[in-house]
Amino acid sequence: MKTFLSEDFLLSNKTAQKLYFDHAADMPIIDYHNHLPPQEIAADKVFENITEVWLKGDHYKWRAMRANGVDERYITGDATDKSKFLKWAETVPYTMRNPLYHWTHLELQRYFGIDTLLNAKTGEEIYEATTVQLQTSAFSTRNLLKKMKVEAVCTTDDPTDSLEFHQQLKQQNPGLKTVPGFRPDKFIMIENPVFPEMIETLGKVTGKNIQDLKDLLEALHDRIDFFHSMGGRLADHGLTQLYASDFTEDEVNKIFRKRLAGHPIFAGEAIQYQSAILYFLGLMYHAKGWTMQFHLGAIRNNNDRLMNILGSDVGCDSVGDYEQATALSRYLNRLDAEEKLTKTILYNLNPRDNELFATMAGNFNDGIIPGKIQWGSAWWFLDQKDGMEAQLNVLSNMGLLSRFLGMLTDSRSFLSFPRHEYFRRILCNLIGKDVENGELPNDLPWLGQMVEDICYHNAKRYLEF
Amino acid sequence: MKTFLSEDFLLSNKTAQKLYFDHAADMPIIDYHNHLPPQEIAADKVFENITEVWLKGDHYKWRAMRANGVDERYITGDATDKSKFLKWAETVPYTMRNPLYHWTHLELQRYFGIDTLLNAKTGEEIYEATTVQLQTSAFSTRNLLKKMKVEAVCTTDDPTDSLEFHQQLKQQNPGLKTVPGFRPDKFIMIENPVFPEMIETLGKVTGKNIQDLKDLLEALHDRIDFFHSMGGRLADHGLTQLYASDFTEDEVNKIFRKRLAGHPIFAGEAIQYQSAILYFLGLMYHAKGWTMQFHLGAIRNNNDRLMNILGSDVGCDSVGDYEQATALSRYLNRLDAEEKLTKTILYNLNPRDNELFATMAGNFNDGIIPGKIQWGSAWWFLDQKDGMEAQLNVLSNMGLLSRFLGMLTDSRSFLSFPRHEYFRRILCNLIGKDVENGELPNDLPWLGQMVEDICYHNAKRYLEF
Amino acid sequence: MKTFLSEDFLLSNKTAQKLYFDHAADMPIIDYHNHLPPQEIAADKVFENITEVWLKGDHYKWRAMRANGVDERYITGDATDKSKFLKWAETVPYTMRNPLYHWTHLELQRYFGIDTLLNAKTGEEIYEATTVQLQTSAFSTRNLLKKMKVEAVCTTDDPTDSLEFHQQLKQQNPGLKTVPGFRPDKFIMIENPVFPEMIETLGKVTGKNIQDLKDLLEALHDRIDFFHSMGGRLADHGLTQLYASDFTEDEVNKIFRKRLAGHPIFAGEAIQYQSAILYFLGLMYHAKGWTMQFHLGAIRNNNDRLMNILGSDVGCDSVGDYEQATALSRYLNRLDAEEKLTKTILYNLNPRDNELFATMAGNFNDGIIPGKIQWGSAWWFLDQKDGMEAQLNVLSNMGLLSRFLGMLTDSRSFLSFPRHEYFRRILCNLIGKDVENGELPNDLPWLGQMVEDICYHNAKRYLEF
Repeated sequence: MKTFLSEDFLLSNKTAQKLYFDHAADMPIIDYHNHLPPQEIAADKVFENITEVWLKGDHYKWRAMRANGVDERYITGDATDKSKFLKWAETVPYTMRNPLYHWTHLELQRYFGIDTLLNAKTGEEIYEATTVQLQTSAFSTRNLLKKMKVEAVCTTDDPTDSLEFHQQLKQQNPGLKTVPGFRPDKFIMIENPVFPEMIETLGKVTGKNIQDLKDLLEALHDRIDFFHSMGGRLADHGLTQLYASDFTEDEVNKIFRKRLAGHPIFAGEAIQYQSAILYFLGLMYHAKGWTMQFHLGAIRNNNDRLMNILGSDVGCDSVGDYEQATALSRYLNRLDAEEKLTKTILYNLNPRDNELFATMAGNFNDGIIPGKIQWGSAWWFLDQKDGMEAQLNVLSNMGLLSRFLGMLTDSRSFLSFPRHEYFRRILCNLIGKDVENGELPNDLPWLGQMVEDICYHNAKRYLEF
Repeated sequence: MKTFLSEDFLLSNKTAQKLYFDHAADMPIIDYHNHLPPQEIAADKVFENITEVWLKGDHYKWRAMRANGVDERYITGDATDKSKFLKWAETVPYTMRNPLYHWTHLELQRYFGIDTLLNAKTGEEIYEATTVQLQTSAFSTRNLLKKMKVEAVCTTDDPTDSLEFHQQLKQQNPGLKTVPGFRPDKFIMIENPVFPEMIETLGKVTGKNIQDLKDLLEALHDRIDFFHSMGGRLADHGLTQLYASDFTEDEVNKIFRKRLAGHPIFAGEAIQYQSAILYFLGLMYHAKGWTMQFHLGAIRNNNDRLMNILGSDVGCDSVGDYEQATALSRYLNRLDAEEKLTKTILYNLNPRDNELFATMAGNFNDGIIPGKIQWGSAWWFLDQKDGMEAQLNVLSNMGLLSRFLGMLTDSRSFLSFPRHEYFRRILCNLIGKDVENGELPNDLPWLGQMVEDICYHNAKRYLEF
Repeated sequence: MKTFLSEDFLLSNKTAQKLYFDHAADMPIIDYHNHLPPQEIAADKVFENITEVWLKGDHYKWRAMRANGVDERYITGDATDKSKFLKWAETVPYTMRNPLYHWTHLELQRYFGIDTLLNAKTGEEIYEATTVQLQTSAFSTRNLLKKMKVEAVCTTDDPTDSLEFHQQLKQQNPGLKTVPGFRPDKFIMIENPVFPEMIETLGKVTGKNIQDLKDLLEALHDRIDFFHSMGGRLADHGLTQLYASDFTEDEVNKIFRKRLAGHPIFAGEAIQYQSAILYFLGLMYHAKGWTMQFHLGAIRNNNDRLMNILGSDVGCDSVGDYEQATALSRYLNRLDAEEKLTKTILYNLNPRDNELFATMAGNFNDGIIPGKIQWGSAWWFLDQKDGMEAQLNVLSNMGLLSRFLGMLTDSRSFLSFPRHEYFRRILCNLIGKDVENGELPNDLPWLGQMVEDICYHNAKRYLEF
């Protein structure tokens, strides 16, 4: 019987333990996609209490609390920070077998040295103990990152963002690379009611009067140049699916102007526009040598009641069942055929598409950059032991695990970096089991190198920050 | 080497065994969705022989026999009960690794105390031995249920049903709760050739001349009232997918009248009608505080040859690949936005939709009823060890296992209640493994409570019979 | 710790070992679907070197090399055979956890007696050692097959093929059955640019002037007769999905004539034509007592850049997400309703459709031929340990494993027959684990027979070569 969260947590065999402790545990972290607020890094913010850092923005926990019958007042409402935390503490034992149970205790152990299990009885004590620690400078945002050996973080930023905090960070040179991530979704989703407003904002930021497609592309180009000058090397897109229908620039220009003028457009027109803009963005990323990421398949903001009160990203999203293969193939092929397909990472939210994504990536490698087209790490709802194992196994079976870029947190929280440890343990455990079962040779130097590559070197080489 | 079907069947570790024997084995059963015939309970029927209770209505066995090359005469034809049983006995060893092999021997053990494996050689002996037992009153329908500690069964009933047997049962007060289940599919599937006839029957039963949508809704309302007065607290719907397109009552009324008049309607009109009727039913269930269930994703009656001879539900159904997310989201949201979404259980037949359903449920919890929106137990083809484990694991990863309502048989047979035992062993085994691997704390009082909740208390609290 | 690829490779328990060594290891092989070139069997070809037999046609290896950053020159280009092999040798360690790593070393061991692991260091030595052996007559194509106890191979042939090499083989009587496989895809895919040309070729081969549907069906009938006379007993179809829309012969005739005349046809017309031709082919196969196979769900030739240089089947295919259930059901039902559904094997490429295919097969068994409708072996990207286990488990849960036809290589290479061994080990391991866990009775004579049936007898009985 193993103790809960013991040193050998998730490591079921000796080879796994050796691989983890000798090759994975001490590797630095390149967190190449997350949602950390750059201003909190620039300010080296110190938190008031654990509610602020743990519960304010974490919609995973909100969902769990709602499912457990906790009143919204204690989730996103006006209850005190302490009473919110106590409601979370009560909920925690009900999350057993959910990744939240692991994350919660891993974070208490790794950051605060607290081994006590969180529940209704221990909530108060843990609230006090964590508050005392959090209010010290050792728990400032940068020190939290340093503690986990985070070498680089790539945030997710609006194309119109001034990147002032990235700028500050550049000047401060804090021993941490903070890379802005270009996320132009709002310029792609033409049917969004706020689209014309977004275009106006983009116009203001770039000093252009955006009237047609050409203006828009120039403005986006400017912002990509600007992001690049600020160290940006990645773009990201959160879409239900890719778009790659046929289009002509003329047609798309008309559609764009019609939309700007406030006229309704047809679904087919939206798809043409989206196909065009994604194509042109692809060209721009390629010209800069960037990596482009696509997070595909979420069905978002399902709950209007909470959307109206709280906005989006409040725990009412889920796994969608969109068609993926044809457009994904056409999009990548269109750029590849012109030899303008840049490094690409594809993430799927529905695990039923694991094999589709894993094999689609394999069609567009170019024999120059190892692992050029990546099938990304298990994302969001899949970011848990079963989901990670499935991703690692499918990737192994249908591609080259050895060339994998590995883990990222995708998180809004400064306390979520033990997920890299979690991933690394799972990775080492799978490889270790194969070795002990005679399914891999017992070649620890090679396998150790492979583990180090996946934990760190592959991302470093590939992303070229 | 463990003996087949030994005491520790499916329990691979000590913690699992402790959880099962101390917390699961003796819990009563609330079988909240099945297809037991209420008249056979009311009559406390005694069966002639095992063919009658095992083979007459079990299309799982029919499929297996057909796949094994058994002539239809011995399946649904005019062969004698004994010769049918012997053909089944011959088939049984060919079902190894199919859940039928486990069900068969579990049922022989638990009800009849027979440890002999069923096959061509032992068929005759087992036929005789079971016949002798079955013809005693100890094997009457109610005694079979009592033997398994069944506290409540919820049957599946036509809205036009008189519920006379439920009425009788209420008067008999047999120490068993029998709850009628409202299943209005035939009033939803407007394209069904018999739809107008169904409406006519509903009119007769409710004493209404159903001419328009308003009449229909009133009639359905009457029947819901009636079911409620008879103890009904659940509705169920078997559909390929949900429908939630936009509609106006006027349009839907026209569509309904057109259909009643015998005119053909368009696919889009059918969807509008279905969207409307499902919405209005949702409102009615909410007003009564009922639980509504949706069984989604089957493709039924694939084989016309057998359909023409035997009708529906004869073993020619399978797993479909229908789009689910958008309509499911819209339907639940439409009711939730008006704060009229009642307790809901969603079941998917295609396991590729497990994560979709598990996460969709999580969008509509209201912070009042714990586990209000449930992702239901592994259904039909998925009701086997791998399917149950997948459901339990996905539910754990994407929701709160602790709030799960647990198992139901969905069965037509009085002998299928050991499936609850099967489920409980699997549940305890998963939790036990996690404890022994250090992935859950070794907190047996809490975990024992969680097991008891999933086996019994959650359903009891939630369904409020 | 087990040694890599030891005698007990993939056999984790004693029962599995017993089953494998006593019942599986020595069974002959019926490889009922592959892409071996019949002329190389007829000529009893001896290979120049391992590059020729291993790398010339194996697009699985090409994909891996491209993903590893190997220049196309060393994959399909003009580099020397030796330098190509060395690039592959360098890539091999990067394929750890991919089935290629297992295939590679299994093939080196079983055919060449080489235990050395292939990598950059050992590449040269292994190239030389294998070349010496390959150039001896003991490594001729037929001797390679004999070494693996291959009793029958079923190749994949164009309907217009002269089958001259099958003819030669019949006369040579080499102690190996070589059965031609009828693959009429190019006469189904009416939108293919080369369709009219294909029809013309068919006309020439059959001595007919094909002007309308009737001519086409007659021509196809002639070729089926011819294949039958040459021992043909199977047809195969590689499609994205099945087609079974309503059609009239008149309409289809018009569509066909329009297409022959070089006019464009609509998508809906193509589907009608495809539905018709598949239906009529189904009738013809039934009349001959053939087995028809459908390989469904690939999205092919995704990469135009490589397609333009290398053509199709060059490692740029992947798993698609096509709708399958409705057309599959309608197609099989249409034939079954007329009692003209012949023996059928269904293969899916997307494992998300495993349960759909497994249960769809179960709808159309006729109670005469055991296992008449088969859900086929894990195909292409799924032909690896996890994929095979998933297929075997889903088949077990939703059908009769005992009636399964078992493994086939689907390969272009004479060295890939150890995949049967691989499959057999996995099969025995699953059954053995169930026995040792008490989930199957410890009835080795029965289970041994079941293993022998799946490895050999079922295919032999079913295919009636």
